[in-house]
Amino acid sequence: MKVKLGIIGYGGMGKWHAQNAPRAGVRIAAVCDIEDEKIKQAKEDGFVTYDSAEALLQDEDVNTVVLTVPNHLHKEMCIKAAKAGKHIVTEKPAALDIVELDEMELACKKAGVFLTVHQNRRWDKDMLIVKKAYEEGLLGNIFTIESKLHSANGYMHEWHLYKKYGGGMIYDWGVHLIDQILFMMPDAKINSVYADIKNVLHDEVDDYFKIILKMNNGVTAHIELSTYILNYAPRWLVGGDKGTMVIKTFAGEGAVYKTGVMLSKLPAQITETVAGPTRQFAPVPPGGIVEEPLPEVETDWIDFYRNVTDVLNNKAESKIKIAQVRRVLGVMEAARKSAESGKSILLEQ
Amino acid sequence: MKVKLGIIGYGGMGKWHAQNAPRAGVRIAAVCDIEDEKIKQAKEDGFVTYDSAEALLQDEDVNTVVLTVPNHLHKEMCIKAAKAGKHIVTEKPAALDIVELDEMELACKKAGVFLTVHQNRRWDKDMLIVKKAYEEGLLGNIFTIESKLHSANGYMHEWHLYKKYGGGMIYDWGVHLIDQILFMMPDAKINSVYADIKNVLHDEVDDYFKIILKMNNGVTAHIELSTYILNYAPRWLVGGDKGTMVIKTFAGEGAVYKTGVMLSKLPAQITETVAGPTRQFAPVPPGGIVEEPLPEVETDWIDFYRNVTDVLNNKAESKIKIAQVRRVLGVMEAARKSAESGKSILLEQ
Repeated sequence: MKVKLGIIGYGGMGKWHAQNAPRAGVRIAAVCDIEDEKIKQAKEDGFVTYDSAEALLQDEDVNTVVLTVPNHLHKEMCIKAAKAGKHIVTEKPAALDIVELDEMELACKKAGVFLTVHQNRRWDKDMLIVKKAYEEGLLGNIFTIESKLHSANGYMHEWHLYKKYGGGMIYDWGVHLIDQILFMMPDAKINSVYADIKNVLHDEVDDYFKIILKMNNGVTAHIELSTYILNYAPRWLVGGDKGTMVIKTFAGEGAVYKTGVMLSKLPAQITETVAGPTRQFAPVPPGGIVEEPLPEVETDWIDFYRNVTDVLNNKAESKIKIAQVRRVLGVMEAARKSAESGKSILLEQ
Repeated sequence: MKVKLGIIGYGGMGKWHAQNAPRAGVRIAAVCDIEDEKIKQAKEDGFVTYDSAEALLQDEDVNTVVLTVPNHLHKEMCIKAAKAGKHIVTEKPAALDIVELDEMELACKKAGVFLTVHQNRRWDKDMLIVKKAYEEGLLGNIFTIESKLHSANGYMHEWHLYKKYGGGMIYDWGVHLIDQILFMMPDAKINSVYADIKNVLHDEVDDYFKIILKMNNGVTAHIELSTYILNYAPRWLVGGDKGTMVIKTFAGEGAVYKTGVMLSKLPAQITETVAGPTRQFAPVPPGGIVEEPLPEVETDWIDFYRNVTDVLNNKAESKIKIAQVRRVLGVMEAARKSAESGKSILLEQ
């Protein structure tokens, strides 16, 4: 069975699916949007078009839809599509909260259709390098993983600016950054969630967050995003008792840092600062830190749609399971509660 | 009245006071230690020596002592010195906990002697640059201050390795890093304390911590220290709604980053990553971020002993007040409680 995809919403992500899904053998069967200009664009791009989701859902050539509409519409569109017998890929966040997700899942179960979520950041090269280091013990016992995303652009685009559409950075990116951590360490339980969420430049929706997950495997994950930090921290900093890994960008530039003689014995060094000496924070003697290349990983996002095809042909399990998506939404809700109350939220203990 | 200083403990910090305090007109009247080798060294350095604190405290030429003994001895030595009628400067942390500090303060009040603490990091250039930016609104409303100290040396020296001597990094450096934040924003209350404290390479004492202070002025301070991160983050990262400040080292190298056109309007940019596009985290167009030099500050640690002299001559208030020191100890205790329980500790609300 070939995936014959109906794209619901022809904005930035709708176009992106249209252009990229065919690489996995997916055929774009139809596109709909409620804006004339976007329908016109879709026609020019060579697609069958509709001016509403309802119309597209009646097209029997479509067996699967992708929901690339604003976040607040995912639930409604998902339930409609399920009732129309279509399999469903939704953009992330799958839903605004767990209650919505449960309704969506139930509707899909009832209709006997497949539901999955485009958590495309599971194919990010930078994250997969960290995952490999974790799995292979490359840094020894990892005690800290810092996942940071900084922008100097200051803005959010389009509907992401508004609360009623499910805007803000936790919905847009928090959902990826949390999912990546849980994907990386699937067997670890989350002991607690603590968060700081701010409105730096946007009054209506969050544009800064730090979410700290203490995991029961000894790792603490520090997830930070800002739309207005003008000198970016590395995308990843991972500290283990045998080394440190730094990955600067999405492209996966960075290195592993290890020490040779360091842990056995070193001559004490002293640094004199304006206000006094420090031995502890004196520099390491030259050659004390050895830089190694990052491990290699191969990744191709197109595996997402290959997996969707395989699932629909009973050849594989879904790589993005609703239980996982639900867990991430739970962390997002805990993060909001934590930020509002000043308290940490104990989970999964 | 001239400060005639008796140095109790002639280890690293004892020697440092001996060499540096005279710049403020302090005379080193005597030195004591319990180790023969250190007494020998003090004699060679030209000082009157004693083999016990008790003997030194009987020397009438000494009117003030500095306690440069391991942390667990501060209380005992302080009380003895107070009873002997000596004014007291103690190394940090002043005490292992608030209960000890209260006993010390009471003993000094009873004896009518002055007690202060060598919180020398209030004269650190890097911190004072951040303080200036905060006071002058250089970055607009500051939402985050990250104070980080990373070492690749992996070790701690001497008694800092042992719990019974008051070892570990929270006592050694946490006390400075917390004090700096509270010194920087004296009018802000601490809403909550959350901490992650780990034993990465040392089983007995902490060698990694992250302490998050949510302040009632909208600033969240993230204080992090590790003895084993091999690629250091900047000493400071400060984010405001008008710019970002980065200070790399104790020496105060770094810059202020600001945006010009950024906040009004920019052409949308898209970055294609392996796993999909991002507009939010696309790079800023060239010239979009303007780099400015850090503000200038002048600082001289010797003001610490000048202030001690002025206090003893009724010419000034103490710059390091016991109430401030007590507050820092309270945060350290809250941090430990938070790390043990996984909960945040609400304070000063």
